[in-house]
Amino acid sequence: MFMRRVAIVGVGMTEFGEHWELGFRELIAQAGVRAIEDAKLQGVKIDALYGGTMAAGRLIGQEHITALIADYMGLNPIPATRVEAACASGGAALRTGYLAVASGMHDVVVVGGAEKMTDVPAGDAAVALGGAGDQEWELFMGATFPALYALIARRHMHEYGTTREMMASVAVKNHANAAKNPYAHFRKEISIEDVLGAKMISEPLTMFDCSPISDGAAAVVLMPLEKAKEHTDMPVEILASMQASDTLALHSRKSLTEMRATKVAAKRAFEMAKVAPGDIDVCEVHDCFTIAEILAIEDIGFFEKGKGGKASLDGETALNSKISINTSGGLKGCGHPVGATGVKQAVEVTWQLRGEAQNNRQVKGAEIGMTHNVGGSGATCVTHIMKRGD
Amino acid sequence: MFMRRVAIVGVGMTEFGEHWELGFRELIAQAGVRAIEDAKLQGVKIDALYGGTMAAGRLIGQEHITALIADYMGLNPIPATRVEAACASGGAALRTGYLAVASGMHDVVVVGGAEKMTDVPAGDAAVALGGAGDQEWELFMGATFPALYALIARRHMHEYGTTREMMASVAVKNHANAAKNPYAHFRKEISIEDVLGAKMISEPLTMFDCSPISDGAAAVVLMPLEKAKEHTDMPVEILASMQASDTLALHSRKSLTEMRATKVAAKRAFEMAKVAPGDIDVCEVHDCFTIAEILAIEDIGFFEKGKGGKASLDGETALNSKISINTSGGLKGCGHPVGATGVKQAVEVTWQLRGEAQNNRQVKGAEIGMTHNVGGSGATCVTHIMKRGD
Repeated sequence: MFMRRVAIVGVGMTEFGEHWELGFRELIAQAGVRAIEDAKLQGVKIDALYGGTMAAGRLIGQEHITALIADYMGLNPIPATRVEAACASGGAALRTGYLAVASGMHDVVVVGGAEKMTDVPAGDAAVALGGAGDQEWELFMGATFPALYALIARRHMHEYGTTREMMASVAVKNHANAAKNPYAHFRKEISIEDVLGAKMISEPLTMFDCSPISDGAAAVVLMPLEKAKEHTDMPVEILASMQASDTLALHSRKSLTEMRATKVAAKRAFEMAKVAPGDIDVCEVHDCFTIAEILAIEDIGFFEKGKGGKASLDGETALNSKISINTSGGLKGCGHPVGATGVKQAVEVTWQLRGEAQNNRQVKGAEIGMTHNVGGSGATCVTHIMKRGD
Repeated sequence: MFMRRVAIVGVGMTEFGEHWELGFRELIAQAGVRAIEDAKLQGVKIDALYGGTMAAGRLIGQEHITALIADYMGLNPIPATRVEAACASGGAALRTGYLAVASGMHDVVVVGGAEKMTDVPAGDAAVALGGAGDQEWELFMGATFPALYALIARRHMHEYGTTREMMASVAVKNHANAAKNPYAHFRKEISIEDVLGAKMISEPLTMFDCSPISDGAAAVVLMPLEKAKEHTDMPVEILASMQASDTLALHSRKSLTEMRATKVAAKRAFEMAKVAPGDIDVCEVHDCFTIAEILAIEDIGFFEKGKGGKASLDGETALNSKISINTSGGLKGCGHPVGATGVKQAVEVTWQLRGEAQNNRQVKGAEIGMTHNVGGSGATCVTHIMKRGD
């Protein structure tokens, strides 16, 4: 391996939510400035920018979005590149920035993620999001994302006895965490009854089984580990950065109840980081729907296949339980500005590993963390494993 | 530097043009298969895929486009990542793939570029392309790309005495080259009178000063140089891969008649490759409009600022003249399927360096080549310098 060791030296994010008062460019600039300040970069040359966004072309009529970010952050003429992998755009941007530093090409790299979604009607946003699946075979036939994940949920219920209560428990836990997160879209607790009694979106998924449409942005600053120590007493090293793909359309897969991209990416990440699922103290997983969190904690290897629902209902994924999952509130509670999500996961895990998570949201003694970011119905998965530096 | 040396070992592309019979997925699969066959990859594991496309979300309702490519090429579960920088998406994808190999993370990387543009009305395509500029300050006010480049052209005429005939000579030369390129959208020669007498699009630019809306795809296979020698007798080494940014909106720039991103990216590329503009035998530049080629050959350093128009009219950029510019026919003659263009430039230069350019299109004794790919009105520029391997 020729690769340099890479660390996160600064993080920042906007509050997630409905930011009718802020445009895309204000959101990303706010997150970026916070990350740059956190990294104490005053006077340091930034070498490159990578930005994750999924659908700014559809949502705000703007492509070339990372050049726009460089422009609005006053960073010209540094290279500015957008990375897109649907809902995993943020994670893919982080991995691309990681490789740019690891390669030796760039020393100081800012990775941002952002999405501005609430300026269009929710139906238009749903159609834009449908572009994450197979447009010709799924969206065109009417299969939006709640419908695709409902198929996955039904099959998981059939094969493993997973119940609607088990799925609801994911939303309840994530709202409980979000209630403690000042950056979260929904800062209030809900009950299993609230989830089961909410409006049905796509049977068996109710409104509270689904992550919301949010605006928001997040950013991290990367450096070689050696150099990182000049900027922070507590660099967070990226031990592994892995990504995998699967078929775009659900109908092409052998199984609906596991995500092959998650399994491959997680396995390779554990190998690269030389750690096991049991070593992870805190993990942000991609809970775009409650069933997605159940698949994730099974496919990463925290729980046996088919046991994720029961584990959630039994509280084994709650804050400071067996494994603390989605301490930020996840996509469900913290919100899901699509391109921002993968970067926000890294921001939250960095805070956790530094011991800086606010409002009693801190995982005690967290040393190793992980992020898991999924695109569409699983055609992309990006995972990162991070460790508090010495 | 920790970076490994990287080579192109295989290239392929579709014909550029109006492919009403082929969808996005057929186009990219055709180009990808040709590149993989050219690289003699049978039995070799491909490690990662990077895809450049600008506006598939707007043009075909499909994001997550590189996952789609991996799916349709049977490459799951390898990492598949889309890279976007407007019209420089292909070049930015090539640079991202280059860094993935240079870093030591991946050994065999396929970089594809594609755009499917002719399935929507030309006006819709123009609006989608407007997303490459500053949507809020330019497109929203009616400034589509021909209008933006017309401003640049008028200012260049004012400052340097550049004439409409000089600009027209760029189109004439590029059509002459395209007439020899079996992959080109327009395989016929035109005259200066044809250009000047064509329909006015945005004064002083006529229809023949503008590159067309095309469908098409291109792909290259990258490997560490060491390993490349097992696959080809003539690897083409990437000596430099550089990228720079500028303000998204024209109104923010100090000068309309030079592209700062081109100047910075080219300067850094020459430094990295340890060559000078005079060493380049063949160069594909981004002639989205005829005036853009004039700016490019000045800003790269082939000609003094203000002298590019006269050099073109005098034939100094023709095939086997002082510097052979756009032997493929460029964007004007070969066509401009936006995301494909930057990758196609690398395909053409590879053919030239290998001595494989067909139909008397070969630059005699070409040893060092260059590509120059611009996003929007210059907010991104990506340059690569390549050399025939020993």
